[in-house]
Amino acid sequence: MNEMLEILGKNAVDAENILRNLSTNKKNQILRQAAEQLVKDTDKILAANAIDVQKGRENQMSEGLVDRLMLDAERIKGIGEGLRQVADLDDPIGEVLGMKKRPNGLLIGQKRVPLGVVGIIYEARPNVTADAFALCFKTGNAVILKGGSDAIHSNQAIVESIRKVLARNEVTEDAIALIQDTSRETASEFMKLNQYVDVLIPRGGKGLIQAVVNNSTIPVIETGTGNCHIYVDDSADLYMAADIVMNAKTQRVGVCNACESLLVHEQVKDVFLPVLAERLRQKHVQMRADEAARALIPDAVAATEEDWGREYLDYILSIKVVGSVDEAIAHINKYNTKHSEAIITNNYENAQRFLDEVDAAAVYVNASTRFTDGFEFGFGAEIGISTQKLHARGPMGLNALTTTKYIIYGNGQVR
Amino acid sequence: MNEMLEILGKNAVDAENILRNLSTNKKNQILRQAAEQLVKDTDKILAANAIDVQKGRENQMSEGLVDRLMLDAERIKGIGEGLRQVADLDDPIGEVLGMKKRPNGLLIGQKRVPLGVVGIIYEARPNVTADAFALCFKTGNAVILKGGSDAIHSNQAIVESIRKVLARNEVTEDAIALIQDTSRETASEFMKLNQYVDVLIPRGGKGLIQAVVNNSTIPVIETGTGNCHIYVDDSADLYMAADIVMNAKTQRVGVCNACESLLVHEQVKDVFLPVLAERLRQKHVQMRADEAARALIPDAVAATEEDWGREYLDYILSIKVVGSVDEAIAHINKYNTKHSEAIITNNYENAQRFLDEVDAAAVYVNASTRFTDGFEFGFGAEIGISTQKLHARGPMGLNALTTTKYIIYGNGQVR
Repeated sequence: MNEMLEILGKNAVDAENILRNLSTNKKNQILRQAAEQLVKDTDKILAANAIDVQKGRENQMSEGLVDRLMLDAERIKGIGEGLRQVADLDDPIGEVLGMKKRPNGLLIGQKRVPLGVVGIIYEARPNVTADAFALCFKTGNAVILKGGSDAIHSNQAIVESIRKVLARNEVTEDAIALIQDTSRETASEFMKLNQYVDVLIPRGGKGLIQAVVNNSTIPVIETGTGNCHIYVDDSADLYMAADIVMNAKTQRVGVCNACESLLVHEQVKDVFLPVLAERLRQKHVQMRADEAARALIPDAVAATEEDWGREYLDYILSIKVVGSVDEAIAHINKYNTKHSEAIITNNYENAQRFLDEVDAAAVYVNASTRFTDGFEFGFGAEIGISTQKLHARGPMGLNALTTTKYIIYGNGQVR
Repeated sequence: MNEMLEILGKNAVDAENILRNLSTNKKNQILRQAAEQLVKDTDKILAANAIDVQKGRENQMSEGLVDRLMLDAERIKGIGEGLRQVADLDDPIGEVLGMKKRPNGLLIGQKRVPLGVVGIIYEARPNVTADAFALCFKTGNAVILKGGSDAIHSNQAIVESIRKVLARNEVTEDAIALIQDTSRETASEFMKLNQYVDVLIPRGGKGLIQAVVNNSTIPVIETGTGNCHIYVDDSADLYMAADIVMNAKTQRVGVCNACESLLVHEQVKDVFLPVLAERLRQKHVQMRADEAARALIPDAVAATEEDWGREYLDYILSIKVVGSVDEAIAHINKYNTKHSEAIITNNYENAQRFLDEVDAAAVYVNASTRFTDGFEFGFGAEIGISTQKLHARGPMGLNALTTTKYIIYGNGQVR
């Protein structure tokens, strides 16, 4: 066992024993001071960030990645603003859910408590460092961060700022720890640290998430890809349908809740598809369609089997004509990634059947899939969108970083 | 990829698309018919079981294991009774938890739905075959079973009975599948079947659970060991304390919620320990104590560091004297397995602090740890007792075999 990880793990568990019972006021005070401190330390953080950016450029990092990596005074202010927003949220810790009296007089309830030690594995985005700390700290968890090597200096500077604030408030600095060794081997060993780490959350691309799922012995909260469908039923308000498809496809294309595939009932295809296609063309959306749809959209590319399963994250939409709501549901359950699915309909039975039978984290009637989002759902924060079924499914707010314990009040009961 | 597993996985996913929407009435009807069918098939099942038992004896299986493996008419009746009890439980599927209206008019709620495909890995206990099916089927899940090679013929016979009932009711037989190949390699490959299986539940000893946690890429629900403590505070009613310790230690010693370690406040040790020790002696409980306790219990063995972390599952109790509730909490958080912990006290502040600060699935004031149990908690069934923190913690009833999906009613909302 890697000695450094062993020490980090033990320290995090010790920290957790303190954080578990920190008052909400104290936690909020620290988050607000950390926001201030980061802004005060702008020069130091930018100097560290400059080293990372220079190294990245030397290593031919793409401009897109450099942009994600690069900080400026404005972005640091934004990071601080994020910490303040988390401070403003309600603290879920300590809530007791439904106490019930058993026949023998035992009073049993569930109390919301921190998960314990949260591990975060992420790529070259220094803002995640502060963001992950804020969400974990607010929920009484200790966090161990494993960022990418590309951002190591930036991450170190941010963590140092936060630890200064913890020390000043006489709260253990081990509430946040950064793994300094960014090698792949250490990452692998970190994923086996289930003796100390209660949950591992990968934040990044598909490759990173798959590596964590395949290698971790720690329970993982998996945030996944979104091959989201919109099904336009024969009873749909077609103006509404077109507006929703345009929004879900084009409002922001690189996100997991964007629409990637359109299913249209054959009864409305003739009226609907030519008009929609014209609007899609104006937004430069490439259409990949089955034969029936291509008869109405001459410039559409022929969709292949592979297209039905794709998350394009781009100005591309696959289009298929279906004969019934059953066919739509079966197609979606076959090809979707269990993220977000919508039906546009005015038929009561079809709406209910779609809600019941489509297997996904979020299922919509007459609304854009783009609403699958912690802020849109009213959580005030978002850890990510879970497409797995255990623990948390769909957009995850602060509650996803908590667990419960049973508390039982007795007066001498024995079995 | 093992072709047989691939087919089982695909069939289970297909089955799940049917089971998800089966009515509660239909599910209950099938469970009751399966109970009858198992009894009708008693001769066949006993003949199959006799082969397993004979093989077990030839392979020098211990009598304890043979007893777990062996069925008789009475035990088969009991298995059927278990199915009927599950039929009588409320169906959690379909419940909608808290719909809320967002400012934009979206109505968002969480609907309780099946997990999907559940994998169960277990040892030579044929009763688990029917039991696991009942719990999974009631919650709309397809189940893939991987039992031990020692019970393969018994398991096959039980599964065949159940599949007959499914077929007769025109519900897919793939609601239950048994992996026929009981090799270790197939078990390992099964644990990587995350494309098809949503959750894996090991049911058996520590070795089995560890193997699954270390090898599975499927999310695991881990049921763990219990090093449960009782702390007798200086303000405790000492008669109550002694009754609770006796119950938690001796009512049944081989179970995970039995008490393994006793902490006693130094202010009451002189009065409490000699009297308790006499009662423990009458039940032939070996005491392993620290120095302060041994001064009062001359026949106690000296406890070693290792004793504080042990789950004895036997007539053995470790005993330690502590100076304060703080010391008790720190000791418990250091050595416990996060299962069940109790304080016996009449001090309000100490009771609340113990409930808040002890990290465990179930924390008691003035009651026996033996109540940590799905039936005692009023769930009507028990999948196991989870000592992990994700998804489910503590005794797991039917809800632990469910997840939720967000359902969203809109009227044209876009972002």
